[in-house]
Amino acid sequence: MANISIPKGTRDFGPAIMGKRQFILNNIKSVYQQYGFLPLETPAMENLSVLTGKYGEEGDQLLFKILNSGDFLKDADAELLNEKASKKVTQQIAEKGLRYDLTVPFARYVVMNRHEITLPFKRYQIQPVWRADRPQKGRYREFYQCDADVVGTTSLLCEAEIICMIKSVMHRLNITDYTIKINHRGVLAGLADIADAKGKEVALYTAIDKLDKIGEEKVKEELMDSDFTAEQCNNIFNLLNYKGSNQEKFQYLKQTFEHSTSGTKGINDLLQVFSILDSLQESDAHVEFDVALARGLSYYTGCIFEVKVNNVKIGSISGGGRYDNLTQSFDSKENLSGVGISFGVDRIFDVMEELNLFPKETTQSSKVLVAFLDEESMHYAYGIVANIRKHGIAAELYPDFAKIKKQLDYANKKQIPFAVIIGEEERKLNKLALKNLESGEQSIVDMAGLIQLFKHS
Amino acid sequence: MANISIPKGTRDFGPAIMGKRQFILNNIKSVYQQYGFLPLETPAMENLSVLTGKYGEEGDQLLFKILNSGDFLKDADAELLNEKASKKVTQQIAEKGLRYDLTVPFARYVVMNRHEITLPFKRYQIQPVWRADRPQKGRYREFYQCDADVVGTTSLLCEAEIICMIKSVMHRLNITDYTIKINHRGVLAGLADIADAKGKEVALYTAIDKLDKIGEEKVKEELMDSDFTAEQCNNIFNLLNYKGSNQEKFQYLKQTFEHSTSGTKGINDLLQVFSILDSLQESDAHVEFDVALARGLSYYTGCIFEVKVNNVKIGSISGGGRYDNLTQSFDSKENLSGVGISFGVDRIFDVMEELNLFPKETTQSSKVLVAFLDEESMHYAYGIVANIRKHGIAAELYPDFAKIKKQLDYANKKQIPFAVIIGEEERKLNKLALKNLESGEQSIVDMAGLIQLFKHS
Repeated sequence: MANISIPKGTRDFGPAIMGKRQFILNNIKSVYQQYGFLPLETPAMENLSVLTGKYGEEGDQLLFKILNSGDFLKDADAELLNEKASKKVTQQIAEKGLRYDLTVPFARYVVMNRHEITLPFKRYQIQPVWRADRPQKGRYREFYQCDADVVGTTSLLCEAEIICMIKSVMHRLNITDYTIKINHRGVLAGLADIADAKGKEVALYTAIDKLDKIGEEKVKEELMDSDFTAEQCNNIFNLLNYKGSNQEKFQYLKQTFEHSTSGTKGINDLLQVFSILDSLQESDAHVEFDVALARGLSYYTGCIFEVKVNNVKIGSISGGGRYDNLTQSFDSKENLSGVGISFGVDRIFDVMEELNLFPKETTQSSKVLVAFLDEESMHYAYGIVANIRKHGIAAELYPDFAKIKKQLDYANKKQIPFAVIIGEEERKLNKLALKNLESGEQSIVDMAGLIQLFKHS
Repeated sequence: MANISIPKGTRDFGPAIMGKRQFILNNIKSVYQQYGFLPLETPAMENLSVLTGKYGEEGDQLLFKILNSGDFLKDADAELLNEKASKKVTQQIAEKGLRYDLTVPFARYVVMNRHEITLPFKRYQIQPVWRADRPQKGRYREFYQCDADVVGTTSLLCEAEIICMIKSVMHRLNITDYTIKINHRGVLAGLADIADAKGKEVALYTAIDKLDKIGEEKVKEELMDSDFTAEQCNNIFNLLNYKGSNQEKFQYLKQTFEHSTSGTKGINDLLQVFSILDSLQESDAHVEFDVALARGLSYYTGCIFEVKVNNVKIGSISGGGRYDNLTQSFDSKENLSGVGISFGVDRIFDVMEELNLFPKETTQSSKVLVAFLDEESMHYAYGIVANIRKHGIAAELYPDFAKIKKQLDYANKKQIPFAVIIGEEERKLNKLALKNLESGEQSIVDMAGLIQLFKHS
C-alpha cells in the first residue's frame, strides 16, 4: 500500500477541485459557443509521424511515446539494441505518441477533413495534453488546454472578436484587474528594420520578450552579447520606451515605420482591429499595445496576444495569435491562415484561488439531504427524496440507518446546504423540518413550500 | 499528405458528432448529480504497478504502455534485449500505462485519499479509457466510460437508486423500449447449489451468460462439454425457464433455494431492492429479474445489472453491480463494499442514431447569422451582432465581405437556424430582416422584437 502513487507531474481532481475547474471550463466554453465556435475532440494518441518535428527538437524529446503492442522487439534492429541506441530504437518500437498540444491535431484534422469542412472553420477544443517536462510548481505532465481557432480567413474581425471573448471570459470569472497585451509580428519586423538588425531578428525578439521579467539593463546586455551596438540598443529602446495611449503609440510608430513595409502593415492591422473593436461596441479598456510582446519563437505571423492578471505573481493565463501556415507541414498545396486563442486552466485556477474569486457554490453537491430520526422515518424519507428529485432538485439520503448527527456530518462534509429532518411528529403532521446547515436556522414547511424555496434559490 | 492518418481504433469527433455525444453525456451527468454523485477525474496515465494484474492476463496484454523518457535502454538488461524478450523488456523500459477502465483508478484514488474522503463516497467519472484491442465495428481503442459508484455502504438503497438513475437517463434520452435486467451473484450461487455444480461455477456462469446469444441447446452442449450431466442440465433449465412476473419468480426461487444460504440471501436482497423501489415511488416497469444474467467473470459479489434496448441489434448499453473488494488489491486492511453503474456512450450513440432519437438541435451552433448586403452594412452588422450577444444569444458574422448567397450557405452548413439580413433600407429604417433558414419565411423586426423571439425559442 505504501507504494501506491500516481505518475509524477499528474494529478487527481477530487470533487471540490473539479467543481472549481468545471466553473472555469464551462464559462470558457459558453463564451466560445456564443461567438459561433463549435466543439472538436481528437484522440489522445496521434501517430508519431504527425507529431514529430512540429515542436522543435526539444519538443520531440518531450513527447510521451506509446510502446507498440505485442512482440514489439521482433523487428527491431539487433545491432541498435545491442548499442542501446535509445533514440533510434524508439522509432522502431513506438509508432504512436500522446498529443503535445491541440494545434497540431487540429491542423491534422483540418487537412484530413478538408472537403467536409465549411470555411471559415471556427472550432474550440478543450482536452488534456501531455508533456514529459520536468514537473515543478505550476508545471504538469498532464494539463488541459482550451483552444479556439478560426481558419480559412484573414479577416481582422477574428482578432477583434478574440479580444471580446477574452474580456467576456474575464468578466464571467470575476477577474477585473488584468491586461490584454497585443502586438503584431509586423511591428517586430519594423523594429528590426529600424534597428538595422537584419539576420539577427531571433536574437532581438528573444531578448525583448524578456523585458518584463529581467528589465532594460539585462535585455541590453543580452543584445550586446548578440553583437548589437550601443546605438542599435538605443534605437530599440527609444522605440520601446515611448509612453502614451494605444492610439498615440500607433501614430508614433506609423511615422517611425514610414520606410518599413512590415512595420506599416503591422500598425495598419492593429489600427483596424481597434476600429472593429469600437464597431463591436467594445472599449479598448484592458487592451494594451505592447511593442515588446513577442510570444517566443512561435509560428505566429500577424497579431499576437497575451493576457496577464495584474498584481499576481503568475505568468500569462492566455495567449494566441495569427499564423499563416497551420497546415503547411501536412499539405503543401494549400495554406490556410488562422488565428487562435488558448486559455490555461491551471494558471487561471491558481489566480482565482489567490484572489479568492471562486463563487461559494462551485461544488455541484445536492441541494438537500433528507435525514431521519428513526427507522420508520427512514422509509418515509424515501418518498420525500423521490418527490424532491421529481422537481429537478438534486437531493440525497444517507443510505444506512444512522444517528442524526452522523447524517448531518455527512451533509456538512459534502457541502450540502440544507437538511430536511423527518421524525414521528413530521410524519404525523405531514410537514418537514427544514434546517439551513450553514446558519443553523430551522423552520417547518410543507412539500410545496420546500419545492418553491429550492426552485428560487 | 497521403499518409496522414489517426491511429487505428481511434476517432475524431467533429462538431455534429460532438453535439450528439454532449447531449448524451450531459444528460447522464445531470442524472448523476441529481442523485448526489460528485465528479472525479484521474490522470490518463497510471503507474503500471497499479494497473497490472487487475484485468486478468488478457487485460494486461491490452494495456497501452508508455515508453520511459530519456535514455530508456540504459538500464535495460542486455541479455533480454539480445533475446528480444519483449515481455520482460517491457517491465524495464515502461513504467506507466494508459488507464484501461475507470474502476481501478477510482479504487486507487479511494485508497490514496482514504482519510479525506467522506464515506459513503458517491463519485461519478466521465473520461476516456484505452485498450489495445483489435478494432472492429463498435469496438474502439479509445472510448469514453461514464461511471457512478457508491463505496462505503452495503445499503440496498444504492441498488434501488441505480435503477432509478437508469430509468431517468433512458427517459431523458427518449429511449422508451428497453429492459433493465437484474440478478444477484447469490442467486447464481443458489443455481450452482441446486445443480450440484460445486467447483464448476465458472463453467456454469459462463455458459448461461450466453443464453441470450446462442440459445438453450448450445448452452446445454457447452455445459455437457464441461461434464455436466443431462440431469444437471435439466435442473438448471427448469429453473431458468420458469416464467412469471418478477414477484412470482422471487417466490418460486425462495422455495427452490430453501436449503441454499447464498440463494436465499440473493432473493432476499432482490426483494428488498424492489421494495425500496416501491418506496421511492418507482414502478418496476422495464425491470426484469433474469436468473441467467451473469456479467461474465467479473468481480461482482451482489446485485448485477445490465441494460438492453429492445428490438435493436446492439449489445447492452449499461451494466454494473455490487462488489465487496474494490480496494482489496491495494489495501489488505480495509475492504469497502461498493456498487456502481457504467454507461457506454458509443453504444447509446449507435442506438439513438438507429432509432432516430436525437433531438433536432444537438449541434450547439449560433442561433443567428448577421448577414450584410453591402460593405457599409457589414460595419453596421458589427454593432448588431454585439447587441445580440449581449443578451446571451449565440450569434456570428461571416468574417469577410462576401455575397449574401455565400453567407447564407455558410449559415446552412453550420445549421444556424436564422439569419438577420442588413441592407441600405434596414439601416435607414433601423429595422432587421429576419429569415428563418429552414422554412424560408421572412419578416421585419426591430432589435427588441428579435431578442424577445430568441429568448423564448
